[in-house]
Amino acid sequence: MPPVQSPEPSPEQSPEKSPAQGPFDLAEGDPFGPHTLPYGVFSTPDAPTRRRIGVRFGDHVLDLSDLPAAVRPPHADLLAAPTLNPLLAAGRTVWREVRAAVRAAVTEPAHRTALTPLCHPLADVTLHLPFEVADYVDFYASEHHATNVGRIFRPNGSALPANWKHLPIGYHGRAGTIVVTGTPVVRPNGQRKGGDDATPLFGPSTRLDIEAEVGFVVGAPSNHHEPVALDAFRDHVFGVCLLNDWSARDIQAWEYVPLGPFLGKSFATSVSAWITPLDAFDEARTQPPARDFPLLPYLDDAAAEPGGIDLRIEVTVNGETVSRPPFASMYWTAAQQLAHMTVNGASLRTGDLFASGTVSGPEPDQLGCLLELTKGQGPFLQDGDEVTLTAWAPGPDGARIGLGEVTGRVLPAPALGGDQA
Amino acid sequence: MPPVQSPEPSPEQSPEKSPAQGPFDLAEGDPFGPHTLPYGVFSTPDAPTRRRIGVRFGDHVLDLSDLPAAVRPPHADLLAAPTLNPLLAAGRTVWREVRAAVRAAVTEPAHRTALTPLCHPLADVTLHLPFEVADYVDFYASEHHATNVGRIFRPNGSALPANWKHLPIGYHGRAGTIVVTGTPVVRPNGQRKGGDDATPLFGPSTRLDIEAEVGFVVGAPSNHHEPVALDAFRDHVFGVCLLNDWSARDIQAWEYVPLGPFLGKSFATSVSAWITPLDAFDEARTQPPARDFPLLPYLDDAAAEPGGIDLRIEVTVNGETVSRPPFASMYWTAAQQLAHMTVNGASLRTGDLFASGTVSGPEPDQLGCLLELTKGQGPFLQDGDEVTLTAWAPGPDGARIGLGEVTGRVLPAPALGGDQA
Repeated sequence: MPPVQSPEPSPEQSPEKSPAQGPFDLAEGDPFGPHTLPYGVFSTPDAPTRRRIGVRFGDHVLDLSDLPAAVRPPHADLLAAPTLNPLLAAGRTVWREVRAAVRAAVTEPAHRTALTPLCHPLADVTLHLPFEVADYVDFYASEHHATNVGRIFRPNGSALPANWKHLPIGYHGRAGTIVVTGTPVVRPNGQRKGGDDATPLFGPSTRLDIEAEVGFVVGAPSNHHEPVALDAFRDHVFGVCLLNDWSARDIQAWEYVPLGPFLGKSFATSVSAWITPLDAFDEARTQPPARDFPLLPYLDDAAAEPGGIDLRIEVTVNGETVSRPPFASMYWTAAQQLAHMTVNGASLRTGDLFASGTVSGPEPDQLGCLLELTKGQGPFLQDGDEVTLTAWAPGPDGARIGLGEVTGRVLPAPALGGDQA
Repeated sequence: MPPVQSPEPSPEQSPEKSPAQGPFDLAEGDPFGPHTLPYGVFSTPDAPTRRRIGVRFGDHVLDLSDLPAAVRPPHADLLAAPTLNPLLAAGRTVWREVRAAVRAAVTEPAHRTALTPLCHPLADVTLHLPFEVADYVDFYASEHHATNVGRIFRPNGSALPANWKHLPIGYHGRAGTIVVTGTPVVRPNGQRKGGDDATPLFGPSTRLDIEAEVGFVVGAPSNHHEPVALDAFRDHVFGVCLLNDWSARDIQAWEYVPLGPFLGKSFATSVSAWITPLDAFDEARTQPPARDFPLLPYLDDAAAEPGGIDLRIEVTVNGETVSRPPFASMYWTAAQQLAHMTVNGASLRTGDLFASGTVSGPEPDQLGCLLELTKGQGPFLQDGDEVTLTAWAPGPDGARIGLGEVTGRVLPAPALGGDQA
């Protein structure tokens, strides 16, 4: 996969600024300014077991767990928890009140003296999985990805399954192996069987891949038997993260018929440490692609607010940009995914996470996994490779809304015991 | 489906006994005697929000949450919790110590006076989901079921997928919609598209089915990147439950290619209220069927302790027995499923639940779902139908080891809004 030329700076690389400036002096164009304000959970070296909620501002984390009275937001008790879950559960009205208060705190010069001691350089903190994941669902919502993968996995069938344009295909993944950015990813062992193999082989995956995805975090739960309609999306979804759905293509190809992916994906799924509130993307809303078939009413978003988000993702491997998948190209929107996921009466819990599926655009340098970037031929990931996803969306007045990066380095597979070799 | 003649009493219907007898006077053959002792969580009408751990003995629940000092078991603090999770997490040594102490308490006549006030008739209590479910995985481990269903779903392909005898096929299900026995099951709405339909239809499932399964509850967690070998099964799995994996066959058939079942199953999965410790089945261990292909070392149980369990399941619809699926006929054992599920390094959490897949034996009256019992033709479940699964296994000295029943009544689908009709 040839590296993509990089005409624009990565949003994670903040523009130059003088080291003498304080945490609130952001450079022009910093994607973590007052219109972004993502939440995360961090700890500091002096209290490594004390997990605290913080908000990212530039290259600093502002500790929200115990703000001084003058800038204390409403619902401060929710911010004193060791995870985002209580805040997630509180619902949209609370989310908006807290966000408004946090924005006021970071933008009012009069508060800077009080807040500066509560700001920690990102480099000095440990970031943790910011919420307890309830159920994890992964969709398959990019037409380009589904078509490309269909051609590789099912060369003798039609690339796009018959149902693909009638419903957003999804499946449940493993919630217990979702890890935060920075966690090393150990190459999985497993069964594989290629067309030339007489019997299945066992060993380290030889086709370890990434999937560049966008995740949506459910805050407010829903009741069993009460579907969440398209226009109730914002009442339930708190925010957005980046997600890398690591995939062992050889394990997946052998196991996935007929009940879907299992061990090919369950070894690790990485998410960014920062959850960016949905409201941050108001200016980035886009119309999804034109629909090729009429949709059933519960999925028909022709009259709804634009359901796409103009998120521009960048995939780097060992620091080289290999792709720039455009999230705006997704056929199925997150609101449609949520409506579909609940139309059978399935309830939502606080902490449910659902992901878009691999984001691939129509161009060869917009593909979200190595399987597509290399047309199934590889090379796939080598031990030691480090993969990083970043993304940003347009915000108000030319601002950029950054998503926290999700990065992971591949470690070698565990040695096989003597009886496995 | 013609009702199966019932030569033996259901284990849930305890044999006659005099109403004058106390809770510890069990009739001969009661499947909830001193060799069974399953754990559950209950509340009483006078304190409906106070969830307490109890053990079932005959038709009573013995409250374990605050036993008198004379019979207090070790680790009593674990039994004071509102769910089984702390006990589950404590590990096998603790499980055995607690079980031995509880058995001593219920079998020692000297304790009866003290314990009788702590016994509640089953009919007087509310039973709750006994543990917090972490991840839920469903397998597909009956060769008879997989063959029968393959013929119906894929009439033009081979009935058994190529991978089926090389690995226990499994997939993740929705943990958040697992409900305890007795919870009504609302017929799901959803998309379906038959071969004769020009476009997908939307509405209540017309092919609502059951799947009679056995569930295994993980107690002790495992570390990421450390597979659980076959012989470590008992160190991690706490106990066994019955499970009904309700399935909307029309929704499932339309959605499941290529990523597996999703809304066809995620609306509800019912489990029994009682988790029977694995040790209760020591006398019921059986050899699984002969393997048709050599297994990779991590799955090869030829030299392991017998991995099957001679559990005899009974399925009733509206009180009529429709099937008697034999769990001993399963091709893949629970230990193999656990070894497979973790061989890629995926970790286990306390509360993980994995189920066997539909249990179907070789005979026409041993099939575990209506799809098979009616050869795909129906009738399927009608609104108002009540389905109950019961099961027992042989115990020591001719005793029966009962599993708690799992029952549910079908309620009509929610009305569709005007824009959905």
